[in-house]
Amino acid sequence: MDKDKKQAPGALFAVPLTPAEYERFGALVTKRTLSQMRSLYADQAAVEDRLAREDPIIYEVYELPHPYDETDLLVNITCLYPGRVGDEYYMTKGHFHARPDSAEAVIGLSGEGELVVQNRAGEVRKLSVRPGQISYAGGGWGHRDINTGNDPLVFLAISGANIVHDYETAARLNFRKRGN
Amino acid sequence: MDKDKKQAPGALFAVPLTPAEYERFGALVTKRTLSQMRSLYADQAAVEDRLAREDPIIYEVYELPHPYDETDLLVNITCLYPGRVGDEYYMTKGHFHARPDSAEAVIGLSGEGELVVQNRAGEVRKLSVRPGQISYAGGGWGHRDINTGNDPLVFLAISGANIVHDYETAARLNFRKRGN
Repeated sequence: MDKDKKQAPGALFAVPLTPAEYERFGALVTKRTLSQMRSLYADQAAVEDRLAREDPIIYEVYELPHPYDETDLLVNITCLYPGRVGDEYYMTKGHFHARPDSAEAVIGLSGEGELVVQNRAGEVRKLSVRPGQISYAGGGWGHRDINTGNDPLVFLAISGANIVHDYETAARLNFRKRGN
Repeated sequence: MDKDKKQAPGALFAVPLTPAEYERFGALVTKRTLSQMRSLYADQAAVEDRLAREDPIIYEVYELPHPYDETDLLVNITCLYPGRVGDEYYMTKGHFHARPDSAEAVIGLSGEGELVVQNRAGEVRKLSVRPGQISYAGGGWGHRDINTGNDPLVFLAISGANIVHDYETAARLNFRKRGN
């Protein structure tokens, strides 16, 4: 982190909570396609069949461009499209937080879905994600969002900017009960 | 902080973002009355005149009761009532963050107001607070909310749970330009 930068006060902005307004504000947009997360779906035949025809965008992350250091908050918007691969809903990759293993809060903006969480012992639980509601996963819960509806699920995700994303543990446990 | 507690995964909940739902969920409610913050208003005659008649509640903070440690996020709702004392709008006490001097994000839920920020050099700026918008003050910006409308200003404030609130610096600088 840039220690010199912290001599000055931090970022200051106000922006409406929509993907379009974030993009107008200069957000970095990352698109995740099925081919980039093919191993996460249970029905590999359905994945291959789909990819033979098309490589759909599963979700987009809108990341604000403000300069930040470890004292900031991440306040990114995700747009998770509706759809299924085999019997599974479209999902985000999911991740744990490492160093520190800290909390994430999700605020639904439009659409309906679930925050699927799993701890390192393998226990799985679900929280609903919907507009006007906060869904909160404290440290130790890896988390993945799934879109259970027919419209895009748009949500704000908030965590400390000091976290390191751990995608490997999430991919290994993959939000499934042990023994399945 | 309780190190033993962190052996287990952290809090897990979903709750609608309204004061009533937070209270139903067991939130701790703190009421701030004019007499508790009388020194913050510029027009001391107006303060004394008002207090001779009544001691109005200026705002209420709804704090979720989930157990937390320094890896959590604070996700409290504030209801700031409409009104004035002399020429000044009803306001929150305001605070800086100390150790670490980290960010705060405010998301408007209903009503209209402003997030007034001030750095330690005395510079003052304002951000609007309104429903569906995120207003963000990085580290180094003390912050106070004011209600500029006719209805209660209800907002969600988010910060790391590892912060220490510094009310003294905010009361000393008091969100006024130096020389005023």
